[in-house]
Amino acid sequence: MDELQALFQPASIAVIGASKNETKIGYTIMANIKASGYTGQVYPLNPREEEILGYRCYPSLQALGKAVDVAVISVPADVSLNVARDCGAAGVKFLVVVSSGFKEIGEIGLRREKELQKICAEHQMRLVGPNVVGIVDTNTPINASFAPAIPSKGKIAFISQSGAMLLSIFDWSRSVGLGFSRFISMGNKADLNEVDFIWSAAIDPNTKVILCYIEDVADGKRFLAVVQAASKLKPVIILKSGTSTAGARAAASHTGALAGSNLAYETAFRQSGVIRAETMSELFDLAISFVNQPIPTGDQVSIVTNSGGPGIIATDSVERNNLRMTRFQKETIAKLRNYLPAEANIYNPVDVLGDARTKRYNVALEAVLADENTDIALVLLSPAAVSEPAETAEAIVELQRRYQEKPVFAAYMGGEGLAEGCRILTDAGIPCFTFPEPALKAIAGMVRFSALHRKIEREQKILRIAKADHQAVKAIFYDVIRDRRLVLLGNEATKVADAYGIPVAEVYLAKNPDEAVAMAETVGYPVVLKVASPKIIHKTDLGGVKTGLENAAAVREAYSAIMESVRRLLPATTIYGIEVQKMMPKGNELIIGMSRDLQFGPLIAFGMGGIYVNLLKDVSFRLAIGLSLEEIEEMIAETKAYSLIRGYRGSKPSDIGALVHILVQVAKLALDFPEITEIDLNPVIAYPDSALALDVKITVSNLDELKG
Amino acid sequence: MDELQALFQPASIAVIGASKNETKIGYTIMANIKASGYTGQVYPLNPREEEILGYRCYPSLQALGKAVDVAVISVPADVSLNVARDCGAAGVKFLVVVSSGFKEIGEIGLRREKELQKICAEHQMRLVGPNVVGIVDTNTPINASFAPAIPSKGKIAFISQSGAMLLSIFDWSRSVGLGFSRFISMGNKADLNEVDFIWSAAIDPNTKVILCYIEDVADGKRFLAVVQAASKLKPVIILKSGTSTAGARAAASHTGALAGSNLAYETAFRQSGVIRAETMSELFDLAISFVNQPIPTGDQVSIVTNSGGPGIIATDSVERNNLRMTRFQKETIAKLRNYLPAEANIYNPVDVLGDARTKRYNVALEAVLADENTDIALVLLSPAAVSEPAETAEAIVELQRRYQEKPVFAAYMGGEGLAEGCRILTDAGIPCFTFPEPALKAIAGMVRFSALHRKIEREQKILRIAKADHQAVKAIFYDVIRDRRLVLLGNEATKVADAYGIPVAEVYLAKNPDEAVAMAETVGYPVVLKVASPKIIHKTDLGGVKTGLENAAAVREAYSAIMESVRRLLPATTIYGIEVQKMMPKGNELIIGMSRDLQFGPLIAFGMGGIYVNLLKDVSFRLAIGLSLEEIEEMIAETKAYSLIRGYRGSKPSDIGALVHILVQVAKLALDFPEITEIDLNPVIAYPDSALALDVKITVSNLDELKG
Repeated sequence: MDELQALFQPASIAVIGASKNETKIGYTIMANIKASGYTGQVYPLNPREEEILGYRCYPSLQALGKAVDVAVISVPADVSLNVARDCGAAGVKFLVVVSSGFKEIGEIGLRREKELQKICAEHQMRLVGPNVVGIVDTNTPINASFAPAIPSKGKIAFISQSGAMLLSIFDWSRSVGLGFSRFISMGNKADLNEVDFIWSAAIDPNTKVILCYIEDVADGKRFLAVVQAASKLKPVIILKSGTSTAGARAAASHTGALAGSNLAYETAFRQSGVIRAETMSELFDLAISFVNQPIPTGDQVSIVTNSGGPGIIATDSVERNNLRMTRFQKETIAKLRNYLPAEANIYNPVDVLGDARTKRYNVALEAVLADENTDIALVLLSPAAVSEPAETAEAIVELQRRYQEKPVFAAYMGGEGLAEGCRILTDAGIPCFTFPEPALKAIAGMVRFSALHRKIEREQKILRIAKADHQAVKAIFYDVIRDRRLVLLGNEATKVADAYGIPVAEVYLAKNPDEAVAMAETVGYPVVLKVASPKIIHKTDLGGVKTGLENAAAVREAYSAIMESVRRLLPATTIYGIEVQKMMPKGNELIIGMSRDLQFGPLIAFGMGGIYVNLLKDVSFRLAIGLSLEEIEEMIAETKAYSLIRGYRGSKPSDIGALVHILVQVAKLALDFPEITEIDLNPVIAYPDSALALDVKITVSNLDELKG
Repeated sequence: MDELQALFQPASIAVIGASKNETKIGYTIMANIKASGYTGQVYPLNPREEEILGYRCYPSLQALGKAVDVAVISVPADVSLNVARDCGAAGVKFLVVVSSGFKEIGEIGLRREKELQKICAEHQMRLVGPNVVGIVDTNTPINASFAPAIPSKGKIAFISQSGAMLLSIFDWSRSVGLGFSRFISMGNKADLNEVDFIWSAAIDPNTKVILCYIEDVADGKRFLAVVQAASKLKPVIILKSGTSTAGARAAASHTGALAGSNLAYETAFRQSGVIRAETMSELFDLAISFVNQPIPTGDQVSIVTNSGGPGIIATDSVERNNLRMTRFQKETIAKLRNYLPAEANIYNPVDVLGDARTKRYNVALEAVLADENTDIALVLLSPAAVSEPAETAEAIVELQRRYQEKPVFAAYMGGEGLAEGCRILTDAGIPCFTFPEPALKAIAGMVRFSALHRKIEREQKILRIAKADHQAVKAIFYDVIRDRRLVLLGNEATKVADAYGIPVAEVYLAKNPDEAVAMAETVGYPVVLKVASPKIIHKTDLGGVKTGLENAAAVREAYSAIMESVRRLLPATTIYGIEVQKMMPKGNELIIGMSRDLQFGPLIAFGMGGIYVNLLKDVSFRLAIGLSLEEIEEMIAETKAYSLIRGYRGSKPSDIGALVHILVQVAKLALDFPEITEIDLNPVIAYPDSALALDVKITVSNLDELKG
């Protein structure tokens, strides 16, 4: 059931602020509704008019005396709240607030917007906007927007957070003949947002592809759940802007610098099966491809061209986009050899030569489409003297019909001379580009979608949580709260890790040299000493760490040296003592971490550890919400560190199962305790039969709520 | 003096194989010459015709009895050689061989092409092609090609190795209204190649920008020298295809995998000041920008937009292209605050709001152009109700005229509604895009050019060669030749390095355990033992290396263990003995290497060393030919290793001067001895006051020529 059905297929619509003055938005909206061929009831509201564009005018909803499905509000912001209250009282289901003057203008507007949200909630009205261009559904049909043009009918739903973007695409789409099922302007997203509109489009029978321009996601967790479901039904392609400012914000903390907000979006999109477009052209190139072409079942591209140069350019582009050139079956090569001239290239890319007419294209394309190894075909045509661009286009269309399961793309490289051929292809749904590179970018997007969804559809292995002693962690946090600290001490962090079954090298806190020696004897030499202070993050830089201590004398000396160095450099800092830890044998140094993203929750990190973390940034990320075992294995395999732990140049492989276990437990810990903002296990040492963290850092946010 | 002047501005031209048959290429060429308005003498040659298109026809050059500047040959390949001989006898200066049937068809064609080269050389004729579309100069004017359309006049010289590409761009350029000074089809490049045509275009007063599509460079060393000079005169923009197959070829050897041929091109283009386009659209976007806009003097971009969303997209794109958003001066912000509405964004990107008419754009753009910090301005326009796209375009054009030194770009985001405005901008030379991202890609190309040329124009510091004992190296190579080896032994390689002043940890070759102990006592414990065999490259993997040997007993034991392990794993391999080397204290492990590129000569590499070389691929490259001290410093600074050697997290900085010295000497060694195919110093250990190579590998090619 589509909860937004009455919004996109309203039985009746009221336009509040309707006008006869052609310069007013209230006029444009009325004109658009009329021009769209909308067949439901239309009620312009304006106390000074009798009728507008042939529709009878009412002074108010009270006067109308009927409930309407949708009320479009185009009145000044300061009167809009009263209008909204009237709508609520009259039982309006959906408000589309075109008026601006809300959150986007600052403090006053924000208060107004909050009041509007309250009114809608009280009356159980759903709200589009405020500050929107409006909405269009070309199948209902209805155009309840002030866009100066009407998009033609098609299968693309376009959802935009930017009104200007919508207007641009309205105008542009007519020039390129692109059709849409829906156009949705979300404005300030005070109530309905991308998640609602994506889901509604996902279950809309007239929509085949969902395009989205967003600047942020309102509710990350809901987005993950709903959009993952939506993207199983239809391709969801998103252009997300604001990556640069977000990148700047992200440099805040140590782990934060690695796990910026843009990274959380990137990760969230991938985990929910969304195809992310990098540019506006790519957004629409992908849309056109998905609307008309079948989803490819593999990544092997076969190219047929009448010229070598463009063939090479396309081949380069295949590799650059992580696609593969099809390796033809023997029969294909035999067919091509039999038919094509001796100078033709019968391997991929197939070069039918500059003097090729339609027949040669036809034979070559049929041969490569019939080849089981071909997943996608791309036809390139340069205008030579005997070229038959239009006839060749017709042949391509015919072949696509016979090999419906395989996507076919074209690049007709030229201008006027090829225009007719290009139109024939476009009309038949075969994406036709001027240059080969954007074709391969679009193909790559389809292949990415196909791979993502094959992965998501595989049954996910259940994550086994080894241990999760919630009470023990709470008890430790109690101490942290009492001290009003945000960073756990080493021994506290170790206990938290232990409570969740994360193996950590034992750490003891010594308050004086004698205790340090006693502890060293307990754990066994050699030992490491580290200063214990919640204020000191980079201990090594301050001389706060001494390694390889072989006996009691060395431990005493190191104790004094650390204290002296730290007290000299940071005289005012509280020092809790010195931590004593057994020195562990060498292994592969890794990092496992967690930072919490505001929108999407815990972001888990894995990569090469030790001093190389910041230098190499060899780290992969996944969101903890909905994380599967496959994804954990994949995030390990994505890193360069994976080459090391698999056994690099003759060394034994590390225990990857033990690393997976730690990642699972870290994710669980982060999901169980929203007050943990960062976890940093660095280094985690991986051995052939185990793995353990040498150092654990845990940072928490304000824990006041735990006191209760 | 342009050696190709008579080719592009011929006083007379003969067309051999001219025809009256409209389906023949020999007709098309005649028709094009006529249609181009060429005012020189035109001589069609055809024994069966009296006249063609009003030009008097001759049976042969002998019959004509005059020398001609250019002869275009369009006869079957098998008669073309005789024709070429006739041309030679008649004193023709330039042959343009349109005929195909040469190198591109295989063995027979290749022989034919070599014969053609010989004929041209004998008669001192220069040759364009064979297998070309022809040449066009729109200023002469002359169109001596069989392209079915004539490009309009402009300031771009387009040089293409692919004839089809040329035909595509001929056709496409008419649709987009792009003009050219020259169109050159290079075909098989049997004589004249990109270097000749680039240089000729560089000194052609009618050309402002040089565009080039190539699949390979015929002569790398000449390219480096000539194109660096050309690119100082004019922007040279190159699209080089074939990067993927070249990439595959490059995986041949150990260092080869890092230094593929595509890398050599990338490095050569950068060192010669060429702008490399990644895609065909980028090639032409760059051309349009360079033709009409001034070179920016910095990288700060100021954006004026009437909508937030596109403004954010453009801002993202600024960062993604390594450009900076301008930080406005106080006066600019004051001006904007005074004039723009309160809700407008007066910081960069400046948002003049959706209801902006021309006036607001005008004030905002003038303010940002007047700001000293603005290097480039980009205007975005979305079609809102009150937008004035055409008037705004006129205002932009007027402002560009007043701020001529600053490049101005536009993205008019829409279709029909904005077409007139877009045309006004384009006509005035302001590049107008549909979406913001390609605009910023083009801007980035201009900024890259500007930075490259500022760098190249700085006076280059002289490289001081410390030591180069040519005779000593020759003596060592003599032994290598005698043994018919291609890989130098460790102690030989060390001596070669020493002869060129490259510091290497001393290595002695022991033939038995007693010798090993004696040598260990000489260099001092601890020592390292390594198997010495020219066949064993990855010694560690085979148990051929033992480190940290502290005394005689350990040395004896290690000697036996190495011998046993290597003999067991590689029983048939010649072992020369075992190398003894003092174990060096820890330092930063780096790699310095050289591999020889077929086209461009020695390619010098620098990066992080040890086991991380292949894992991290943190390596930068420069070509040895023409290498300057700045470039060496720059190649060090480009790597992640630089963060380490600068002093990472409290450690002392390494001796960068010592590393520069080693790089200089390696470059010199590689230039002096063309027979060295690879040099691998791995690791080079860098200390605070020195640097030395622990291991030197040198591989040579066939050295027979040294025997003489």
